[in-house]
Amino acid sequence: MSTLFKHFRVHQVFGANTNVGKTLLTTALVRASAQRGKDVFYLKPVSTGPLEDADDYHVNRYTANFKKLIHAECLFRYDEPVSPHLAVRMKANLEGQDVVPPPSDGTFIDSVANRIRTHAKSSLNLAHMYLETAGGVHSPALSGTSQADCYRPLFLPTVLIGDSKLGGISSTISSYESLLLRGYIIDAVILFRDEYYQNAEYLKPYFSERGIFVHTVDSPPERLSDFSENFASTDKYYAAITSVEAEHGVGPVVDHLDICHTKRLEELESMPRRAYDSIWWPFVQHGLVKGEKDVTVIDSAYSDFFSITNKGNISASSSTDSILEPQYDGSASWWTQTLGHAHPSLTLAAAKASGRYGHVMFPQSVHLPALKLAERLVNDGPGKGWASRAFISDNGSTGMEVALKMALRAFTIRQQKDIKEEEKKELGILGLKGSYHGDTIGAMDACEEGVYTCEWHNAKGYWFDPPTVGIKDGEVYITVPGTLSSFPQANDIRADSLAWVYDVENRLQTSLARAYAMYITRALESLEQRGGPKLAALVLEPLLMGAGGMVFVDPLFQRVLIDTVRGRRSGSSSSWSGLPVIFDEVFVGLNRIGMESTGPLLGVYPDISVNAKVLTGGLLPLAVTLASKSIFEAFLGDNKAEALLHGHSYTAHPIGCEVANETLSILDKITTSDEWVAAQESWAKPDGTKSPVWSLWDPNFITAISKLPQVKEVMTLGCVLSIKIKDDASGYTSHSAQTLLQSLNLASQEDGSLSTAPGGAAFGMHFRTLGDVAYFMTSLNTSSAVIRSIEDKIWKTLTSTT
Amino acid sequence: MSTLFKHFRVHQVFGANTNVGKTLLTTALVRASAQRGKDVFYLKPVSTGPLEDADDYHVNRYTANFKKLIHAECLFRYDEPVSPHLAVRMKANLEGQDVVPPPSDGTFIDSVANRIRTHAKSSLNLAHMYLETAGGVHSPALSGTSQADCYRPLFLPTVLIGDSKLGGISSTISSYESLLLRGYIIDAVILFRDEYYQNAEYLKPYFSERGIFVHTVDSPPERLSDFSENFASTDKYYAAITSVEAEHGVGPVVDHLDICHTKRLEELESMPRRAYDSIWWPFVQHGLVKGEKDVTVIDSAYSDFFSITNKGNISASSSTDSILEPQYDGSASWWTQTLGHAHPSLTLAAAKASGRYGHVMFPQSVHLPALKLAERLVNDGPGKGWASRAFISDNGSTGMEVALKMALRAFTIRQQKDIKEEEKKELGILGLKGSYHGDTIGAMDACEEGVYTCEWHNAKGYWFDPPTVGIKDGEVYITVPGTLSSFPQANDIRADSLAWVYDVENRLQTSLARAYAMYITRALESLEQRGGPKLAALVLEPLLMGAGGMVFVDPLFQRVLIDTVRGRRSGSSSSWSGLPVIFDEVFVGLNRIGMESTGPLLGVYPDISVNAKVLTGGLLPLAVTLASKSIFEAFLGDNKAEALLHGHSYTAHPIGCEVANETLSILDKITTSDEWVAAQESWAKPDGTKSPVWSLWDPNFITAISKLPQVKEVMTLGCVLSIKIKDDASGYTSHSAQTLLQSLNLASQEDGSLSTAPGGAAFGMHFRTLGDVAYFMTSLNTSSAVIRSIEDKIWKTLTSTT
Repeated sequence: MSTLFKHFRVHQVFGANTNVGKTLLTTALVRASAQRGKDVFYLKPVSTGPLEDADDYHVNRYTANFKKLIHAECLFRYDEPVSPHLAVRMKANLEGQDVVPPPSDGTFIDSVANRIRTHAKSSLNLAHMYLETAGGVHSPALSGTSQADCYRPLFLPTVLIGDSKLGGISSTISSYESLLLRGYIIDAVILFRDEYYQNAEYLKPYFSERGIFVHTVDSPPERLSDFSENFASTDKYYAAITSVEAEHGVGPVVDHLDICHTKRLEELESMPRRAYDSIWWPFVQHGLVKGEKDVTVIDSAYSDFFSITNKGNISASSSTDSILEPQYDGSASWWTQTLGHAHPSLTLAAAKASGRYGHVMFPQSVHLPALKLAERLVNDGPGKGWASRAFISDNGSTGMEVALKMALRAFTIRQQKDIKEEEKKELGILGLKGSYHGDTIGAMDACEEGVYTCEWHNAKGYWFDPPTVGIKDGEVYITVPGTLSSFPQANDIRADSLAWVYDVENRLQTSLARAYAMYITRALESLEQRGGPKLAALVLEPLLMGAGGMVFVDPLFQRVLIDTVRGRRSGSSSSWSGLPVIFDEVFVGLNRIGMESTGPLLGVYPDISVNAKVLTGGLLPLAVTLASKSIFEAFLGDNKAEALLHGHSYTAHPIGCEVANETLSILDKITTSDEWVAAQESWAKPDGTKSPVWSLWDPNFITAISKLPQVKEVMTLGCVLSIKIKDDASGYTSHSAQTLLQSLNLASQEDGSLSTAPGGAAFGMHFRTLGDVAYFMTSLNTSSAVIRSIEDKIWKTLTSTT
Repeated sequence: MSTLFKHFRVHQVFGANTNVGKTLLTTALVRASAQRGKDVFYLKPVSTGPLEDADDYHVNRYTANFKKLIHAECLFRYDEPVSPHLAVRMKANLEGQDVVPPPSDGTFIDSVANRIRTHAKSSLNLAHMYLETAGGVHSPALSGTSQADCYRPLFLPTVLIGDSKLGGISSTISSYESLLLRGYIIDAVILFRDEYYQNAEYLKPYFSERGIFVHTVDSPPERLSDFSENFASTDKYYAAITSVEAEHGVGPVVDHLDICHTKRLEELESMPRRAYDSIWWPFVQHGLVKGEKDVTVIDSAYSDFFSITNKGNISASSSTDSILEPQYDGSASWWTQTLGHAHPSLTLAAAKASGRYGHVMFPQSVHLPALKLAERLVNDGPGKGWASRAFISDNGSTGMEVALKMALRAFTIRQQKDIKEEEKKELGILGLKGSYHGDTIGAMDACEEGVYTCEWHNAKGYWFDPPTVGIKDGEVYITVPGTLSSFPQANDIRADSLAWVYDVENRLQTSLARAYAMYITRALESLEQRGGPKLAALVLEPLLMGAGGMVFVDPLFQRVLIDTVRGRRSGSSSSWSGLPVIFDEVFVGLNRIGMESTGPLLGVYPDISVNAKVLTGGLLPLAVTLASKSIFEAFLGDNKAEALLHGHSYTAHPIGCEVANETLSILDKITTSDEWVAAQESWAKPDGTKSPVWSLWDPNFITAISKLPQVKEVMTLGCVLSIKIKDDASGYTSHSAQTLLQSLNLASQEDGSLSTAPGGAAFGMHFRTLGDVAYFMTSLNTSSAVIRSIEDKIWKTLTSTT
């Protein structure tokens, strides 16, 4: 992602199979580029064949024939004609040694990227580089990862050497599809001419239809047993296929790759202007977008990083730096990223469902991906212990509209005699100030009107000002809002630890709990006396209100609120009581804050809950609304008009369901991984026992930044880190967080420190602020190494501005 | 899709490459099955190798050795060791003949499926069949389609023969991924043991992690030059690897495939009950779902057909019929299907974007798939000539909420002085009765309340009863509603032709146009006098209101309504006038009704329009709201709160955008295809000139059914066919359409007629009704042969009930 240069064109060469002429044709490309007056670099990070016969023979011995220097090098050498991962072991066995662990993919890719950048830096003239991969597209790399997966972080444009032999059509197309599944830009397919099998005759129109250039090259001569005769014959062959006139030489490929390179640069350069002219961005005031420089071009993404163009004028640039640079996705792309960008397992899950079903009709029908998802969520997921049904829709906002329709209907059915038709339109929601449930009007109407509103937004309900949890100056505080502070015992509390705050059951008998209950009861009574809205549902974002400013609500308050609203449940009944309770777990659910769902911590379950975002691993929209049996039964009848009349055309689209199933299955591994266990241990209680809450962020880092003078408060749970900046103008209208931290955007690297971005280049950070709050979010599988490096960046930025 | 039998287990065998031992291992599977007491069938639809050395040698000569009969047969024979598609040509060339066109994929697959069904029917005992494909997974079939694509309609469970040689890890995994992209169920990977390359040691954990069984088999002996020695050595080898005791034989594979078969049957049988217990379906009254038999299990889908389980009790069944049968998707899966289910190009587009980006943050950033989509829609799509910006959201309903927010804001900005804060919440929509814009509350509030409504639904606006177009008794009528008939000249009209009705420009000067204008003007004046809602936007589903009952609105009425509302546009201004006009083209847009957008036919463009459904080719949700410059500018400012504050986490998800781009590019071909041109010609005006409207349905069929006594009215445009049934209880509450046509659900085939379903089995139809209206919808690329067969089925059903 950091290896695209204006003056230095790099292509990687993949083979559709072993023995398809990859080294030979790469060598020919190298020679042809040299003959066209370019400096050429030939990088073969791992050699799997006998080196003298391959690289040196094909390249170095002919270097003198050309005007320009050809640089050929191998980064790692394993001499057996087997897969690199096996060569590591065989070599050790032969030498009677223990197996030396091969370099990790990260180390390997960093060393390749560094080599590329070093050569680019040293090249003042136009230069080409060809990087030859080992074996076929899925041959194992040193570490055992497949070539296509191992090289993916570099995201180099690709030449695929096709297979001209019997069966070669199949292996060429399959290899192409495997590359495509990793998103590679494939600039050309080259293969030998073969009059008998005529694979090229088939592949040319095939790839042309897919916009890919195919070129055939004359086959090499038979290998001769006499060395000098073979040398002469090979030399003649190379001369022929690299000459400018050769119809079936590699020259046209070199020219084509040049054109691809130029077009790509032009395209990247044109994108900000074109986007600025044709796109209407969500939640963006276009009047504040001052021009192209304010537009981020995302060329690709991998793991926790975008690959973005740096903001200079590409065509005018004379820099030898990469035009692309990594950028840490510090908002987890609006809270969606779960497994990092472009996770191959999710791509394959999407592909599998698309290949089997496309999309199919859902009402009264069933397909495996949807069934498995429903069963998993209801029986073994957030619905465990209370939910009976899963209703699938398209995103968090629609999932919440479904939840609201469920709750309001359940309420009106029970109140049938007391409720008028007109009242049904104005039923109220009970919730907390700062709530957010999505941008469709129904979801908006369940929240207060605030700075951000729109014409039809008509807030229906009553919202409490909640007490909050935060870390100030190294100490954990519960901050009680002014409206509550008149109640006895309702004062700000300095807590022993986060663990104490979130031990809800233990706190139920405290005086603060009684104060909460009294405050809630009185407020509701007063609302009724004033003739306030007829409340029909309690709607909460449990523990953490995201869009409202990363507000960590005192869990005790939410528990007491639920208990108060529900009153005393009638003995054995599992039916909802008081008001139906909706948990909007779109943001907090499925381990974003370190727990699958919030019910177990709060000690109470909802009647309805909604999951989205993490649900599909950060790949595409889907939401599930879970409901208890008593909610479901409110819609049962013999009249269709009494049914839940909500459905989207793509309801339960198989791709989304299959990706969700794959995500949930990967989450099972992540949530029990060593990294998670280690993080949980770092947040253990003072006595060493397990805390009910924890974070992937380091507790010492949290404490340290909470003590900085410009920091008002810090808080963290799971993947989320929230930093509130001191500012007179607090809330949304503040720009303090953006102003203070904006240098994080810029790529930077301390001298001598290693970058944790794939490919090891300096990187900046994308992050979002909510007024005076800056928040940072990791994926669920972000490595501790990356998180530590992000913590360093934040620390340096905050302390440099002190 | 019609080849799954309880007693007759069929597996297809794909090769990871040529020369990986596919024939040999298939033969071994055949022999091992026979040895386990099963009838065995070995079907090799195309032979690419010398037959005596392959099939006969490996199979037939050993038949006598086993207790059970082994049936081996080839359907087509081409003897050259090249790809089948090439063999066709080479054979012709050798014999000096013209190339005989090979069988089409459809014919080929039908013949294979028939053979399978025939053998299944004739087998009373448990039997196995192995179908061996040719070459590698993407080797071209006879027609030139690749094996993996060609066999996809059969959707047979699969055994992949892996490659044990150097490079074989790569080719095995790539082949697996190509099969996965087509959705195949892969039950096992088999490959030879190889101590040197150890591919199996790599592939076993690799596939195990993906839930796939890998088994290794001892390698075959060297081929001996002496025939009888070779025979003996091969015989011994087969005996060894098929014996029950052999650790590295094929026996464990046979046992595993039996288990897979049993599990699949059990799973299919369990699905209705499990779905009935865990899923809450959209728009379904669960009280009317009487049990498992009312649940359709969709096992896979292909082209215009689902593959569903027939409703019998699978475990108790003693039938020799297929457990799966094709079902025509007559609602195009709630109007989404565009290119048929599981179109490989869309799968690959989705995979490509997923591999390159996953999902990435969209506010103020840009990626290629979103940029190309925005530019295409704004400049060369439905926005051509009027739109300036594309706003991307998740589905039709959210796209309409965005459109409404745009229109209402544009209106209030212009009315700033005259409008109160409270009025903004109650601004009204002008529209037509029967409108539908989606199921989120905002979209619902833009429509009347009717039978289908919900608690918060609060219809805001005024809706005209529109005149409609339909074909009755062979004649085209414009039916004027009662509210209009008091106006002079506003009577029902018998039109010359559909072409005349839709020639809007020509009709503007008619007396009916004047009557419409007068009616509209008076109604609006009266509304204002009554103090009706303050109207802020005109919202129309142009030409056809779908969910409202497939109401074909007289286009002249919509044109006059728009003109009236807009008044006289000020000269050169492109700013909106009167009220912002929204076209909801979610259903009708992008060629569903035979035109890309409706503006050109109506002769007026909207200020805002919405596309979804067809946009993503029927694969997954995405919507685009287009807006004119003057609408966009209403949100410009230097305050974020004035921006369009709408965004979903997955806004502009790259998969959706890339799939949309691929769809639009395929639509360019379909809309100029011979099939479309032929259909357009069949709907030419009486004078032979082109009609502004046309249909994929046959005009003679339309005329014929419009004359049936139980049919009240018929109408068609593009892919849509609507049949209104005579019934005293009209509208939604009627069940007449469902009752009359429900036998279409059942699989049926007239004696001697050919089925157009993939695989040629008898099929029933899924279709949906809207009260007294039954509608049928094709994909945009449904073949005329399929449509003719559907017309036949509808005709027979309607006439059999006369």
